[in-house]
Amino acid sequence: MSHQNIYDNETFFAGYRAIRANKNNANDLFETPALLSLLPELRGCAVLDLGCGCGDHCAEFIRMGAEQVVGVDISKKMLAAAQAENSHPKITYLNMPMESIGELNGSFDVVTSSLAVHYVEDFRGLAKDIFSLLKPGGFFVFSQENPVNTCFSGGSRWTRDEQGNKLYAHLADYSTDGKRQSEWFVDGVVKYHRTFSSIVNTLVDAGFVIEQMIEPVPDSEMMAKHPEHRDLIHKPDFLLVRAKKPL
Amino acid sequence: MSHQNIYDNETFFAGYRAIRANKNNANDLFETPALLSLLPELRGCAVLDLGCGCGDHCAEFIRMGAEQVVGVDISKKMLAAAQAENSHPKITYLNMPMESIGELNGSFDVVTSSLAVHYVEDFRGLAKDIFSLLKPGGFFVFSQENPVNTCFSGGSRWTRDEQGNKLYAHLADYSTDGKRQSEWFVDGVVKYHRTFSSIVNTLVDAGFVIEQMIEPVPDSEMMAKHPEHRDLIHKPDFLLVRAKKPL
Repeated sequence: MSHQNIYDNETFFAGYRAIRANKNNANDLFETPALLSLLPELRGCAVLDLGCGCGDHCAEFIRMGAEQVVGVDISKKMLAAAQAENSHPKITYLNMPMESIGELNGSFDVVTSSLAVHYVEDFRGLAKDIFSLLKPGGFFVFSQENPVNTCFSGGSRWTRDEQGNKLYAHLADYSTDGKRQSEWFVDGVVKYHRTFSSIVNTLVDAGFVIEQMIEPVPDSEMMAKHPEHRDLIHKPDFLLVRAKKPL
Repeated sequence: MSHQNIYDNETFFAGYRAIRANKNNANDLFETPALLSLLPELRGCAVLDLGCGCGDHCAEFIRMGAEQVVGVDISKKMLAAAQAENSHPKITYLNMPMESIGELNGSFDVVTSSLAVHYVEDFRGLAKDIFSLLKPGGFFVFSQENPVNTCFSGGSRWTRDEQGNKLYAHLADYSTDGKRQSEWFVDGVVKYHRTFSSIVNTLVDAGFVIEQMIEPVPDSEMMAKHPEHRDLIHKPDFLLVRAKKPL
């Protein structure tokens, strides 16, 4: 089985690094704070980060007190950046697709993943692997693109008024789980859409208890500061979940 | 506090009874089967049905073996129809807003509600009341309009192609929970929108464990038989939830 490794594409990698360098991007403003807010106390914890990219979150988990962090990513380019920018004696970076974590030994208090599981076709298998790698009482905290985003595979995303303001976000094919191709820096980026109910049921079937979900949007203060994100009121970009492996 | 009682409006009641008399309506084809599929074994159970309307579900629960059913509805007209069409020695109909069930005595194995909780402003209070009325190990099984529907408060619902076929459903104001007014037989029907994450978090905060969610759509066989429902593939009408009060 081959796994998508779009982040090792030169054009994609350069484009991705450029938007992430702008610290007013939606990830830094909405996604990462929401993800961190869902984490349990990390002091003394072993953390596994799936799709760790450049290791920013791994380094943050160490600053939050984690005892050991393992970062997994399919992209060699991303891990080279992680080694250069976020290496630490307590962090181990592993170059592997997250579909292969069933091969890992060890057990973790927390498994995290930031905006990566929508690249995985077999979320059911992944959820089972994560459940197995967690200690009883451990947490799986992840973000992904919101299902109202991932459903869409082409065409026009918005209805606009005559001044170009966004009136309605478009919803298409929401009810059909599966592969979607889209353009993001390069053509043919593959993501997998799953409905809300499908995500929840998959986690429950794996044995998890859903503890909290967040669809983050700017508060009024942030909306005033970053009016470019005001359309999130129509269509949230992200969905975040904290799920617990029962004791 | 006054509670909306739109079902006692003559025009609304007549319109509602007319669509429900057509047995190819979305409720009968998709919503009710999904609701019944989420129920536990009812044999010997005490069931409370919130927003019971004409009592069709109450009568079905008795046929499924329930020992006692209490149906609650705010509408006297609906309950008159329930008494006429679905009376049974084991069914008690109570005329009250579901916001007042905190006043009820007794405890139940199962609380159900079909397409009614989106009329309730204080879902948090309702979830707490239901949790209190359930026996440990009991279930709350309910349907409501899907959040991708309830978010919308006016304007055009679809982008169509030149032949009039539906291309995209419109999403507006999804991220803002709260009151929505719409036209359904009569003007000014009030419903309350809540995001997926808000619904899940409210149930979890009340003490429930989420066991399963369904956003029902026609399968291919039903799609062939009822092509008028094919647009559900873009935008599901309903959301159903089974939540459990832990033992």
